[in-house]
Amino acid sequence: MTHMKFVLAPDSFKESMTAKQVCVAMEQGFKTVFPDAEFVHVPMADGGEGTVQSLVDATGGEIFHLDVTGPLGSQVKAGYGVLGDGKTAVIEMASASGIQYINAENRNPLIATTYGTGELIKACLQRGIRRIIIGIGGSATNDGGAGMAQALGVRFLDGEGMALPFGGGALGRLHSIDMSGLDPAVGETEIIVACDVTNPLCGEHGASAVFGPQKGATEEMVRTLDGNLAHYAKIIRRQLRRDVETIPGAGAAGGLGAGLLAFTRCELKKGIDIIIDFSKLKEKLAGADYCITGEGGIDFQTKFGKTPYGVAKAAKAGNVPVIALAGRIGKGTHELYQEGIDAIFGIIPDIGELGSLLADGEINITRTSENIGRLMKIATLK
Amino acid sequence: MTHMKFVLAPDSFKESMTAKQVCVAMEQGFKTVFPDAEFVHVPMADGGEGTVQSLVDATGGEIFHLDVTGPLGSQVKAGYGVLGDGKTAVIEMASASGIQYINAENRNPLIATTYGTGELIKACLQRGIRRIIIGIGGSATNDGGAGMAQALGVRFLDGEGMALPFGGGALGRLHSIDMSGLDPAVGETEIIVACDVTNPLCGEHGASAVFGPQKGATEEMVRTLDGNLAHYAKIIRRQLRRDVETIPGAGAAGGLGAGLLAFTRCELKKGIDIIIDFSKLKEKLAGADYCITGEGGIDFQTKFGKTPYGVAKAAKAGNVPVIALAGRIGKGTHELYQEGIDAIFGIIPDIGELGSLLADGEINITRTSENIGRLMKIATLK
Repeated sequence: MTHMKFVLAPDSFKESMTAKQVCVAMEQGFKTVFPDAEFVHVPMADGGEGTVQSLVDATGGEIFHLDVTGPLGSQVKAGYGVLGDGKTAVIEMASASGIQYINAENRNPLIATTYGTGELIKACLQRGIRRIIIGIGGSATNDGGAGMAQALGVRFLDGEGMALPFGGGALGRLHSIDMSGLDPAVGETEIIVACDVTNPLCGEHGASAVFGPQKGATEEMVRTLDGNLAHYAKIIRRQLRRDVETIPGAGAAGGLGAGLLAFTRCELKKGIDIIIDFSKLKEKLAGADYCITGEGGIDFQTKFGKTPYGVAKAAKAGNVPVIALAGRIGKGTHELYQEGIDAIFGIIPDIGELGSLLADGEINITRTSENIGRLMKIATLK
Repeated sequence: MTHMKFVLAPDSFKESMTAKQVCVAMEQGFKTVFPDAEFVHVPMADGGEGTVQSLVDATGGEIFHLDVTGPLGSQVKAGYGVLGDGKTAVIEMASASGIQYINAENRNPLIATTYGTGELIKACLQRGIRRIIIGIGGSATNDGGAGMAQALGVRFLDGEGMALPFGGGALGRLHSIDMSGLDPAVGETEIIVACDVTNPLCGEHGASAVFGPQKGATEEMVRTLDGNLAHYAKIIRRQLRRDVETIPGAGAAGGLGAGLLAFTRCELKKGIDIIIDFSKLKEKLAGADYCITGEGGIDFQTKFGKTPYGVAKAAKAGNVPVIALAGRIGKGTHELYQEGIDAIFGIIPDIGELGSLLADGEINITRTSENIGRLMKIATLK
């Protein structure tokens, strides 16, 4: 083992460090043991929070900020990234239309809109971008992506030809869709939707029934919203000849999945697969001795498409051992061994309180990485 | 690496698991990875709490319980161990005379006595034991070991020939020592004192000044106690021709060190060295691939004679790599690498609250051991 190569491919540690910062801390630790090793940083994400930051960091891109319409209509500061290729943008819908903008008592999916997400897409199109990755987790909305479409020039009209207001509550009055104002750039643009859920738009597994309650919907509101989305899908089917109601993932982000399917040229993919693709993780793993991944929390759910799982699959394809670091080790992590995660180490040094642990992320990741490296070195000599 | 040998030599994880239980949990973890390996359990201690249990477990001995006089005079349930050789006893003075028996507001080193510790020694002598290991940490007392000597038959008399009451507060009235009643077995018995402090009996670094306050002594009490111990040492010097005042360690456990030096045949040794000796750790390390140690907490203080430090020294002498597990990783653990601890891993999976972490010790040690084993195995293939 003369030349060692480490690929560092962690997710962010939420509320503590970006994925790139985690890479730096890991390198610090391993470098004390292997000063001559090569360290390749591949900051990862799974399509959720941190996706823009990680893809921008992984590709040497840039983040742009702008004011857009928040989920309840007031302006919010959102952002999107442009990857290092200069041609691909990356958006998190939650940056514009996320539930984090609304405290619990004000949540109202009848009126919440994805208009701001559409504004982000529009900003990318105006920049000349024709390929956009959209992560669609964490929404406050249940409008079927109608707001997003409105921002791009689509008009939703009632029986009297009047434009509908924002929100899934108004969609029951939808009579026709006016596509004449749709930004022509939309048709030239490839949209890749990072979507890890398979919910259809309507019904008992649909957007309203499954995700409505956590966005503030009462039982009655769920019934209204579900009926309205079914009506919305019917009008789309009739007018645009696209059947979006039953496609797996159409119900993601309050039906934004359906809206993207109806009004844009898009494909839905697993978030982690998109990030692996655009970060060129597989290429970077070639010839690596170890791949180090990690996430704020690792548990049995990790195998349902979270970053360490995806990284492990990619690394195993190249026969590279995978070590994972975690801030929190939950139940069932032994199930991850057979998914290709070879070993998992916690980074918490003491019980302490959450605030100081989040603040000490760098120290803890560096120390744990150093000790993993020290053990690697000893064992290699055996 | 066809046949693997692991020596498991942890301390107890205080309030969570005995050292033996830690060994069992470690083996459970490593065995999933190395099912054919040999696992040698050497439950360790450093002369402090857990020493009796660990030495008994390490040698296949037995623990005996009896009622003795507690530090403030009421009866307490104490115990001592007899090692597997049947010839050596092990006592923790705190089991009879420890500060854990007295809550903060009732602490009074003027009257606290080591009488119960003497009773434990006497019980060993009556059993025919002629070699006793005594761990002397955690005392509530400041009586120079006078109480211990009283239990063995020594009488401390005032100017009128009356026996002094218990406690360091009375020693100022000491006029003469009546050795005529001393149990003759004491002279036939080798006492090995596990003592990690080097404080002299008196003065600014002495028992009263340094340890008195944590036992409840006010500034005035410290002055009284320090003067009394100096007087006590003077009488001992004059009558027994033993100079105990300035010997390093004489000030341990409120001067119990001095009392043992004055009235018994004893030597003071570092606790961890005694345990390494009697547990036959060095012999058991022969041919080992790895030594796994650990303690509830590991930090820079570990190098001042705590178990993982001593184990590392012993293992390094045999060129065996040392991995440490810790419930709590404190400051300055990187200083331990050069002391022979090759890598340190925390076992805490989540912040949680202390109670459940203590209860989950076994799960956490097993999981961490398994992951260390998995990493060892991968690295060995490199």
